[in-house]
Amino acid sequence: MSLITVGTMAFDAIETPFGKVDRIVGGSATYVAYAASNFVKPVQQISIVGYDFPKEEMDELRKRGVHLDGVEIVKDKKSFFWSGRYHEDMNSRDTLITDLNVLLDFDPKIPDSYQGAEFLMLGNLAPKIQMNVIQELKQRPKLIVMDTMNFWMETAMPELQIVLKYVDLLLVNDAEARQLTGQFSLVKAAKSIMQMGPKYLIIKKGEHGALLFHGADVFFAPALPLEDVFDPTGAGDTFAGGFIGHLARTGDISFENMKRGIIVGSAMASFCVEKFGPTRLKEITASDISGRIQQFKDLVSFEIELV
Amino acid sequence: MSLITVGTMAFDAIETPFGKVDRIVGGSATYVAYAASNFVKPVQQISIVGYDFPKEEMDELRKRGVHLDGVEIVKDKKSFFWSGRYHEDMNSRDTLITDLNVLLDFDPKIPDSYQGAEFLMLGNLAPKIQMNVIQELKQRPKLIVMDTMNFWMETAMPELQIVLKYVDLLLVNDAEARQLTGQFSLVKAAKSIMQMGPKYLIIKKGEHGALLFHGADVFFAPALPLEDVFDPTGAGDTFAGGFIGHLARTGDISFENMKRGIIVGSAMASFCVEKFGPTRLKEITASDISGRIQQFKDLVSFEIELV
Repeated sequence: MSLITVGTMAFDAIETPFGKVDRIVGGSATYVAYAASNFVKPVQQISIVGYDFPKEEMDELRKRGVHLDGVEIVKDKKSFFWSGRYHEDMNSRDTLITDLNVLLDFDPKIPDSYQGAEFLMLGNLAPKIQMNVIQELKQRPKLIVMDTMNFWMETAMPELQIVLKYVDLLLVNDAEARQLTGQFSLVKAAKSIMQMGPKYLIIKKGEHGALLFHGADVFFAPALPLEDVFDPTGAGDTFAGGFIGHLARTGDISFENMKRGIIVGSAMASFCVEKFGPTRLKEITASDISGRIQQFKDLVSFEIELV
Repeated sequence: MSLITVGTMAFDAIETPFGKVDRIVGGSATYVAYAASNFVKPVQQISIVGYDFPKEEMDELRKRGVHLDGVEIVKDKKSFFWSGRYHEDMNSRDTLITDLNVLLDFDPKIPDSYQGAEFLMLGNLAPKIQMNVIQELKQRPKLIVMDTMNFWMETAMPELQIVLKYVDLLLVNDAEARQLTGQFSLVKAAKSIMQMGPKYLIIKKGEHGALLFHGADVFFAPALPLEDVFDPTGAGDTFAGGFIGHLARTGDISFENMKRGIIVGSAMASFCVEKFGPTRLKEITASDISGRIQQFKDLVSFEIELV
């Protein structure tokens, strides 16, 4: 089934305890596309780039079944640029530079060829832009997944609250879930968020895994214990891409299948962090992915008879 | 199979965001005994208390199959007392008071009736005392599990390194694993610790679950997502008690069975944090425990076909 993904395509400069890159392709929609295209084609991308975004990257994405009709190229502006430095624990980072560039003009239009898509992934963007995308769709997708961040809670809470009423699943990290609700307990925060609109909620906890909530049901998937997390940039978006890619491949939006989606997403994210930017995502094969999913099964599986 | 557990029996004063108690029974061996006695009898306790330790608590423990022949009662001294205050995140705490009292005289002797025990749980104590216990045993137990803490790494590292060579399984938290090895990556820290002596290692991550390492094998168990963690005091010891209680009940020290032990330990710890001190551990029934273990199964179980 087809999938629309909306988000940024950008350049990043990244510094981690293991090294630095001055300019590497990034952006939420880039990571989502590289992850999801392993499972579903086409991935129908909606984004905006400047004159400087590499043609080779576009070709690489096209080769993987990513449609770029919805990616606007602005001839006289630069692509969105983000620069950050990770601390030793890799769970926190400082943003050094945010040059919005083309992002200031982002007013996404849905190409006709994208209409009728069953899955929609709304990457982290201004809630107003996310809402516009939903309203431009002639047919409501079977599943709308939305990412957001603390910045919008601080600067656009009323708009954010409106979009929340239109989405099926919200994807946030633990700090964002707490900020959105004022609840420290993630279980309480989840209950509160599910009253704001989304029937499903995924709380990402980075190296501590991810939780899926729906009504009274909870599912937990760990992150894979890795010798080194080389660069966490894009891991959350890669997780989202693997998750929704799996759902779109199977067309099944049951809680049971979302569990599988979370394992697939976690496996994809575990590759992402092994090299700078999306480098590792471009190298892996279907057999690498199967092997990694098997590692997740081994990591948490146990048999127990109740006493 | 019989189990010897060595550690403190004490009084605690605890302050959490939910309330405070000025004096409640605590100590590592108390929590281990309350948890393990659900699975194995006898639990052969080795500890030291003062004249003020409540007779009713001793009776309560005896009723549960805990032998107290190895608990020395010092007539003219007070029991060990600890006082602490938890921060809002419940993952960190300040120690306000540590009155060692009888602990200064602790020189554990193994009663003859305890000799021949197959399982030994060495609670967090001076490494020298832990070593003495191992040397007093006429027959080496089938499995020796040891807990320790950062304080001994700072003040008694050479002694700690000696005991490590004699134990089968070390139980530490993530910060302690990092401090012991100087490795930030828990996977690297685990490899390094397994070269110091223990063939098995459990790294406790509090609300983020626990990892079991053995050679190249890894198993992960989450903590149960709870609405409120009321009081984390003793949760680590309760986990240890459930873990070794399960192993001692089954007599099986395979990696597969240790996985089950970790689930049992996690289930017991999830009860412990629901009320102050060991209060909740005294209330629960076998059916409560089975129900909680089922919740852990539901929390992590998934079926996936590899793509």
